[in-house]
Amino acid sequence: MLYPKNIRYLAVSLSFILGSLSLMNTAIHADEGMWLFNQLPLEVLKQKYDFTPTPEWIDHVMKSSVRFNIGGSGSFISKSGLVLTNHHVASDTLQKLSTPQKNLYREGFYAETQDQEIKAPDLELNQLISIEDVTARVMGVVKPEMPPQEAYAAQKSEKAKIEKESFEQTGLRSDVVTLYMGGQFHLYRYKKYTDIRLVFAPELDIAFFGGDQDNFEFPRYDLDMAIFRAYENGNPVNVENYFSWSRTDVIENELIFVSGHPGGTDRIQTVSALKAQRDFQLPAILNFIYRQEIFLQQYGYEGKEQDRLASTDLFGIKNGRKVLMGQLKGLQDQKMMQAKLKAESELKLEISKRPELVSTLSAFDQIAEAEAMDAKLSKRSNFLEGYMGLNTKLFRIAKTLVRMAAEDLKKDSDRLPEFQVSHRASLEQRLFSTAPIYTQYEQAKLTFSLQYLAEQLGEDSPIVQKILMGKSPEERAQELIEGTSLAAVEVRKLIAKGGMKAIRYSQDTMIRLAAAIDPDARSIRKMTEDKVEGPKQQAYAEIAKALFAVYGTKVYPDATFTLRLTFGTVSGHMDNGQLIAPITKIGGAFEHERNHESEKPWKLPASWHQAKDKLNLEVPFNFISSADIIGGNSGSPVINRQGEFVGLIFDGNIHSTVGNFVYIPETNRAVAVNSGGILEALSKIYNAKALVEELQR
Amino acid sequence: MLYPKNIRYLAVSLSFILGSLSLMNTAIHADEGMWLFNQLPLEVLKQKYDFTPTPEWIDHVMKSSVRFNIGGSGSFISKSGLVLTNHHVASDTLQKLSTPQKNLYREGFYAETQDQEIKAPDLELNQLISIEDVTARVMGVVKPEMPPQEAYAAQKSEKAKIEKESFEQTGLRSDVVTLYMGGQFHLYRYKKYTDIRLVFAPELDIAFFGGDQDNFEFPRYDLDMAIFRAYENGNPVNVENYFSWSRTDVIENELIFVSGHPGGTDRIQTVSALKAQRDFQLPAILNFIYRQEIFLQQYGYEGKEQDRLASTDLFGIKNGRKVLMGQLKGLQDQKMMQAKLKAESELKLEISKRPELVSTLSAFDQIAEAEAMDAKLSKRSNFLEGYMGLNTKLFRIAKTLVRMAAEDLKKDSDRLPEFQVSHRASLEQRLFSTAPIYTQYEQAKLTFSLQYLAEQLGEDSPIVQKILMGKSPEERAQELIEGTSLAAVEVRKLIAKGGMKAIRYSQDTMIRLAAAIDPDARSIRKMTEDKVEGPKQQAYAEIAKALFAVYGTKVYPDATFTLRLTFGTVSGHMDNGQLIAPITKIGGAFEHERNHESEKPWKLPASWHQAKDKLNLEVPFNFISSADIIGGNSGSPVINRQGEFVGLIFDGNIHSTVGNFVYIPETNRAVAVNSGGILEALSKIYNAKALVEELQR
Repeated sequence: MLYPKNIRYLAVSLSFILGSLSLMNTAIHADEGMWLFNQLPLEVLKQKYDFTPTPEWIDHVMKSSVRFNIGGSGSFISKSGLVLTNHHVASDTLQKLSTPQKNLYREGFYAETQDQEIKAPDLELNQLISIEDVTARVMGVVKPEMPPQEAYAAQKSEKAKIEKESFEQTGLRSDVVTLYMGGQFHLYRYKKYTDIRLVFAPELDIAFFGGDQDNFEFPRYDLDMAIFRAYENGNPVNVENYFSWSRTDVIENELIFVSGHPGGTDRIQTVSALKAQRDFQLPAILNFIYRQEIFLQQYGYEGKEQDRLASTDLFGIKNGRKVLMGQLKGLQDQKMMQAKLKAESELKLEISKRPELVSTLSAFDQIAEAEAMDAKLSKRSNFLEGYMGLNTKLFRIAKTLVRMAAEDLKKDSDRLPEFQVSHRASLEQRLFSTAPIYTQYEQAKLTFSLQYLAEQLGEDSPIVQKILMGKSPEERAQELIEGTSLAAVEVRKLIAKGGMKAIRYSQDTMIRLAAAIDPDARSIRKMTEDKVEGPKQQAYAEIAKALFAVYGTKVYPDATFTLRLTFGTVSGHMDNGQLIAPITKIGGAFEHERNHESEKPWKLPASWHQAKDKLNLEVPFNFISSADIIGGNSGSPVINRQGEFVGLIFDGNIHSTVGNFVYIPETNRAVAVNSGGILEALSKIYNAKALVEELQR
Repeated sequence: MLYPKNIRYLAVSLSFILGSLSLMNTAIHADEGMWLFNQLPLEVLKQKYDFTPTPEWIDHVMKSSVRFNIGGSGSFISKSGLVLTNHHVASDTLQKLSTPQKNLYREGFYAETQDQEIKAPDLELNQLISIEDVTARVMGVVKPEMPPQEAYAAQKSEKAKIEKESFEQTGLRSDVVTLYMGGQFHLYRYKKYTDIRLVFAPELDIAFFGGDQDNFEFPRYDLDMAIFRAYENGNPVNVENYFSWSRTDVIENELIFVSGHPGGTDRIQTVSALKAQRDFQLPAILNFIYRQEIFLQQYGYEGKEQDRLASTDLFGIKNGRKVLMGQLKGLQDQKMMQAKLKAESELKLEISKRPELVSTLSAFDQIAEAEAMDAKLSKRSNFLEGYMGLNTKLFRIAKTLVRMAAEDLKKDSDRLPEFQVSHRASLEQRLFSTAPIYTQYEQAKLTFSLQYLAEQLGEDSPIVQKILMGKSPEERAQELIEGTSLAAVEVRKLIAKGGMKAIRYSQDTMIRLAAAIDPDARSIRKMTEDKVEGPKQQAYAEIAKALFAVYGTKVYPDATFTLRLTFGTVSGHMDNGQLIAPITKIGGAFEHERNHESEKPWKLPASWHQAKDKLNLEVPFNFISSADIIGGNSGSPVINRQGEFVGLIFDGNIHSTVGNFVYIPETNRAVAVNSGGILEALSKIYNAKALVEELQR
């Protein structure tokens, strides 16, 4: 599964590690590239596919696409605001809407009429309205001879100003996106939807048929879909732009496009940065992930309710483990590293030929230095500014409240970005989410993570002592959970309203802990910005400039969880001497079940067996294409030349897990549910007549 | 489960970490103590239980007990050499005797007649015949002013001489055991049995009823037993000493004894050593264990045969994870650490009062220094001298062959201990084991561990480069496995016979790799001995001397996988305000199954349901006692005052997992199968008439 929830789960720690960077490959492969909507490779499309999208086509595709704040993609598929995404993108919401009695995540859901649609507690969708290049303005604040951390701070502040101005002028969510790791800055304006209601989800057993075992594999037979509807002022939104449903299924070798939000890639990274990932960053995350996986499994064993509570987190962790092990495997492949080294040497050679660029060579050393510094800081940063050591929603809430009180006293452009005016509504949407919090589960997670904190930072270290206060992790976790009221939304609102005073006088254990360690957490964040992020941004900006100079516009920026267009063809590939055909059929699901003797996770839901006789088993079900996608693209629409919906991205194959660093055209494939397969299931298995009619209207 | 296989699995790395140390508690608790057979606490027994064992009683119990070389305990239970142990101690053998068609580990086994008994490929049993105190002789070789590493080497050499002499004189396996971490040295002579045949094992589902979830818990309902028979010269051995079966079941508060081989405890460890365990050693092993657990699970998912191959390793890893997490929890409990600190301060105070002991105070610093050095060396040592990075049986075999060739050229007392004459037969028993080796499984393990090696030591480090030779872990593992013939026993024998020449000219990939990195592995082993083991042994010997001087004979040595006697009563305990009764009944197994809706791992075998009507459901099944046991005690007999067999140790409760460091009398409990429960099952479920008759003869 592509959904980078596991990565977001580690929050800030990972934004340091798997943050937004960009591309270094000198020769762009066939269908490689996650292209900006304002910088599409029109020549390549024309040359290779004899296709030239009109400005209207581009605008329509852009505005029909949406981003899920939880870390995925989606698209409008009806005039009345239906939004299609993956079941695994919806899973967080399905989980939050479930109860011990009714498990929507496992059992599925269908609202036959609009009044049965259920509001998600904290979903936010973003629809991209415009892109504006503000590079000159952001770059303009940097004076020559400014040290990197000052330049970084000045740019940060300027970005905040641009965002605030734009927000106040347009009322639209306004994000200045750092592209090419600092080479360009674009202002993205989004229309925001926050009243999102659940319309349909199938059973987990077909959404994730084949489970962890089939994940990142192909052939597949999954109905990994869910449908929401966007509302405004209590009514379904009327959207001008949405994808109409193609009347024909995809065929082999057909040109397709994917419009979605790849979460992050590291293709521009220098060899020293890749080695730092291989030797320090990935191992640290993997240690955490392997432990979480066992912990969550064990917790789930304790009973049915525990299993329900841990299941979506466990899914995210398992998925993350597969992705990161794939990345590690790529980095440990010395052939890949040699290729990266070769590309870097070639670029350096080109640079050294151009006197105006020669100063860029030191940028490579600056990155190596920053990475070495990061290796020193990242452990502490993972635990204090990330959540490896205080892994409970209740601490995150406390930390947000504590910081909000302090940040609100500052002028907007001086605040930490997440507390700036332009992001405030999104922050509150999450902070005041009505999603239930289960304290026993939170306590178990906190206990386990405090053990890990003590183990990794050393129990005698001052910061661990400050957190544990002379107690064992188990005792301290119990005390912290029993002494907090933050599970109640009204308490959060009260404290948020009370500002600094409320924080100062609060006896809430989590608030007290967050306040006590906030100076330490802020200090490590500041140090990371000054010594790692700042120098890296400046260095990559230099390298990006050199890349443009040497290779021109053939260069796309690394993924940044912003809208990109990728393209490719529906095509199979060779795997261990065997040809993998690109399209599976609905009948294949039943065959796959039989081949595994109906053992879980290869057990189809009862609804599928009941409807089998009515189904057209020849309808294409899943397909692969050579489109260049990555985590965050989950739920992206696949569209044809006519701009019609033909598929729903939900996974990459195993060869795509190195996609973070390199796109391998021979084997990298994106996995999608076929549009016709969705219709067949909706109409014949789930009898969702109203829905099917609305989609085909 | 108590079986320390998971620990031995890590081999040398762990012998450094969880090696043989001894006790520091100043006040010995109620039933605390793993006592030497030649230094039993007769006064305590007399005072507390009004029991004085006769010399005959002691000798009989000693000679009726046996040690399993695989890491467990057992006992003779019939004149014709029947040996009782746990299913999970037998599991390694059950696995090796299984085939894709017949899975003895899961399905169980019963040989109705002697000709159906199957020979284990590499089991060795040791029966302790005598103990001789050789402290004076070993201590005598140390000259004043000798630096620690020289003293250590001199003692090692002297121990080898004593063992060789004893072996040549008696023909008995002769081990000089280091007690009190260097405070005493005793010569143990064992009669060895190497023709061990499988007689009976129940199904895994009842041997490990409740699975990982119930492991280390009580109440329990497990038939964790297996029966072997020892042979000599093709005939069952006639043993003089064996336990006769008690005609009555245990009752609450009854005095019982456990005679077995606790694997290792760290109760003498200084606070600095405990902190090193907490902050460096345990985390390193836990990282490895968590990863192995996921790896083995994933491998098992690939198919039925893969599941069969990985299942016993997975069991060991899961078990190890529970034990080590229990230990970590204990070390992270600041109350426990405070108690240890208090005990240490008291001892230091007593020492400072005695002028003749004052020099001992520096021993504490010496240990702290050695631990700091260990923190630097242990990673490399775990990977090169242990098997964290080359985790395949085939590499272990290669390494043994490479070293054997070199060691055989040296004089006996200069050799690495495992290659000395007195241990040679045991070494060859393992090296030439006919147990099948499944190369696909070995390749998967090797791939995963090479990835881990590269990740942990850094792919660019010279030693990793030497191992990977410019290939990815996956490619290198494939090359190594495809290029070795060591899976064939005759090849191993040929190379062993060919000595140095055979090694030098061998083209076998594993031999070449082992030979290439042997200098590095030897060097880290030597450095660890010189800088860690030597100084620690000398320092602990000083501390032990002080302990004897201050506290007299109340002190028992830490466990060393040698025979110990412990005692206690059949008794329940309080747990979270709830009284845990000490004895369960056979009927409880059926109830426990119902309470879990017969879902795995709470599904009783068909044989149990078929026999249910015949069973006396009131027969006691499992019981707990306050005896002080630990991993390695698995399979130990529980006996009554009369020296009769009343139970079979198979687990400790969750509170016993900190037993490595401290015995908590209120809650630490040993879990056993009741003798009457065994008979009831053998006669009514398994219809093992001949066996039942032999046991009661």
